[in-house]
Amino acid sequence: MNLDNFFKAKSIAIIGVSRNPAKIGHVIFRNLLDGGFKGKVFPVNPELKSMFGIKAYKSVSDIKEKVELAVISIPAEHVLKVVRECNEKNIKDVLIITAGFKEVGNRVSENELKDYLELHGMRCMGVNCLGIVDFHHHVDLIFLPRSRLKRPEAGNISFVTQSGALGSAILDLCAVNGYKFSKFISYGNATIIDESDILEYLVKDKTTKVICLYLEGVKNGEKFFSTLKKIAKKKPVIVMKGGISEEGNTATISHTGALAGKSEVYFGIFKQTNVVVADSLEQMLYYASTFSNIGKINGNKVQIITNGGGYGVITADAVSAAGNLKLAAMNEKIKTKLKNDIDNELVSFANPLDLIGDADTERYKKAIEACINDNNIDAILLIILYQTPLITTDIIDVVGEFNRLKRKPILVVSTGGNFTRVLKDALNDEDVCTYEFPEHAVKALSAIVRYKRK
Amino acid sequence: MNLDNFFKAKSIAIIGVSRNPAKIGHVIFRNLLDGGFKGKVFPVNPELKSMFGIKAYKSVSDIKEKVELAVISIPAEHVLKVVRECNEKNIKDVLIITAGFKEVGNRVSENELKDYLELHGMRCMGVNCLGIVDFHHHVDLIFLPRSRLKRPEAGNISFVTQSGALGSAILDLCAVNGYKFSKFISYGNATIIDESDILEYLVKDKTTKVICLYLEGVKNGEKFFSTLKKIAKKKPVIVMKGGISEEGNTATISHTGALAGKSEVYFGIFKQTNVVVADSLEQMLYYASTFSNIGKINGNKVQIITNGGGYGVITADAVSAAGNLKLAAMNEKIKTKLKNDIDNELVSFANPLDLIGDADTERYKKAIEACINDNNIDAILLIILYQTPLITTDIIDVVGEFNRLKRKPILVVSTGGNFTRVLKDALNDEDVCTYEFPEHAVKALSAIVRYKRK
Repeated sequence: MNLDNFFKAKSIAIIGVSRNPAKIGHVIFRNLLDGGFKGKVFPVNPELKSMFGIKAYKSVSDIKEKVELAVISIPAEHVLKVVRECNEKNIKDVLIITAGFKEVGNRVSENELKDYLELHGMRCMGVNCLGIVDFHHHVDLIFLPRSRLKRPEAGNISFVTQSGALGSAILDLCAVNGYKFSKFISYGNATIIDESDILEYLVKDKTTKVICLYLEGVKNGEKFFSTLKKIAKKKPVIVMKGGISEEGNTATISHTGALAGKSEVYFGIFKQTNVVVADSLEQMLYYASTFSNIGKINGNKVQIITNGGGYGVITADAVSAAGNLKLAAMNEKIKTKLKNDIDNELVSFANPLDLIGDADTERYKKAIEACINDNNIDAILLIILYQTPLITTDIIDVVGEFNRLKRKPILVVSTGGNFTRVLKDALNDEDVCTYEFPEHAVKALSAIVRYKRK
Repeated sequence: MNLDNFFKAKSIAIIGVSRNPAKIGHVIFRNLLDGGFKGKVFPVNPELKSMFGIKAYKSVSDIKEKVELAVISIPAEHVLKVVRECNEKNIKDVLIITAGFKEVGNRVSENELKDYLELHGMRCMGVNCLGIVDFHHHVDLIFLPRSRLKRPEAGNISFVTQSGALGSAILDLCAVNGYKFSKFISYGNATIIDESDILEYLVKDKTTKVICLYLEGVKNGEKFFSTLKKIAKKKPVIVMKGGISEEGNTATISHTGALAGKSEVYFGIFKQTNVVVADSLEQMLYYASTFSNIGKINGNKVQIITNGGGYGVITADAVSAAGNLKLAAMNEKIKTKLKNDIDNELVSFANPLDLIGDADTERYKKAIEACINDNNIDAILLIILYQTPLITTDIIDVVGEFNRLKRKPILVVSTGGNFTRVLKDALNDEDVCTYEFPEHAVKALSAIVRYKRK
């Protein structure tokens, strides 16, 4: 299914614009403008002449120009009528925000709507959804204000979510953590366009490198299975499944109107199709940032570099627990040279390579360089605890330089307060993968090693 | 063992003070002053006449007044000599920061030192440690600058760590997350005072409610076992064990000079003695803040309240996965009254109780109040996603009020960016337990229910 108009439309009608800033139609219209949309926008509301200085229309029928996408945010009982008008105006793509359909038991209205949309070959995102953002094309069509929900920068992660509120909370967190996004897609009840259609579109989308999916249930299991079989080896699909318990499953009914279904079936499908399963939202996030920045890895041999002994110990524990990773054994020649270069008898030249508490940027540089050049090492787990005074901020440049070489993955772990966060953010800006806890870095690396790319 | 002088000393000598701000002795001296220490401070360095306007001494022998605690930060080869001087001056408590003993294979020196200390009944914290902080008595004796490592406010968590760097990173993170501390104790090689002595002291310490322990290995397993048996039911002891894998265990040798030992033995001891085991640093932290704020819980029946359906679903999943928690069934009368009060047909009056995306503070207030008064409910998992515009900031006051009643635990989950963080911090200031992800809140609650208090 060609979903281009949802992300790249050059002319968008917002049906249900309001002067009241608490209304969804108002917020969406404003977000589209504030987001820097370059195309034409047509606010629609029978009672308005203009909105923010832009001419308003009584209905889409009154718009003379071509409209590629209509966003509908009006009470449920009027949606079908407006969809008809869209069709008559030859608008085949509609994003329907409106709730009050099958998720509250109103199956009749939703089926009626669905039948009409299908009969006329219309594509519909929603109903009962938060909306869509394309960060590259400045199409911001979600109904939460930018003051409450910070938008991430443009990048390569696309996030597909059945739950709007969950999606919005995660998007907000990602923005502040420096994650960079291609698309955010809340698809709600999936009246026409479902998760499979979206996945199929995203796998061909050039700005998407990683797909995250929060999923409760799918309507068409076979379609989902065959879609995943086709795509999940081409691009990593990271899935967080909601409703895996009986209690959670029951809760999905009042949420998107569909039982989540047997979770064993889902996990069976995920395993067969190479899906990256995240066991929590937090894990979905650090998986996403890792796949977003790291392209490939040659093997599973990991070298830990640290300035804190205890962090080395627990990281080694985590590597062991991962199951598919091994601690690398440094090439003896390289190790001997490094020993001479660093020349400090308290430093432990093992794995973990413990540069100890008085390590400065120069000592780190020597250690990383040795590991980059050592073919016995496939990835570097770099622990930098910024609490010690001898580490200067130019370590950011040093790590950034090595990371740009793309010789092997470098994952950086730093735990701490504001000073640490500022330096972590600076590394994120250099597209270096950073983590707050060693266990996260190790699990992410383990997922990268496990993932089989076609 | 009476460790009062390490935390409450009214007169402290800092041996090895230096004018060079990069030197440990300099930083410790400065931290003690900047930390607001109210007692007397005696800088000791043969080459200085004064430091920051405070008279310096050539050696402790030259100090005429009483000294209760000596902090030693000089090269390893001179430590024994200085310890002798301390003994002659009748200083029985020494904090030895100096590294370069058994952790680098220098067992002879450490044993010699140990023999002397034991022979003369001296108590020694360290060697090879980061130092100590008592946040209530303004005793700040760690050698990392306050500019790099923010100090938490005074509170009831005491953190005992074998690894200094690990401890410092965690302390820094805790400060920025609003955790409140009683004591920070880095005990390094445990030459005299070991983890058991410290635990025994902390269980009697009035300002300590929760004890966190990062542990690699213990020298005296029987002592450790019997100590835990005595104390772990009186106050929660949350342990994160490093070196549980062969790889991690090996790494501990070059760290604190001792093999961590068989982890099965440790976990056996923990299980028998009621220790709260944390499987990661992150988990240790959210366990700590939960035990710090929540005193008791009457049962295991949990009510979820949410404004995001998906968050309700995954929280229900987490409750089910916890094993020892149950979703509460609301009292029918209270539920009926709440339905009338809220009067919104899209709200789902179940568990999760889904207040939906347009919930305002008033709707939350009604829901929380109903749950507080419902005896079928033992704890409230309150999800507040601040991205939606109708939630006003006075929700902080509402939740704070209910929390102060101490009728039942309220755990608040909020995910998001800066706006969310500000409101989370405000709740923390009200001593409300907050979490970034639902899984953390649920696991913490599960640990509270599992913990048996004597």
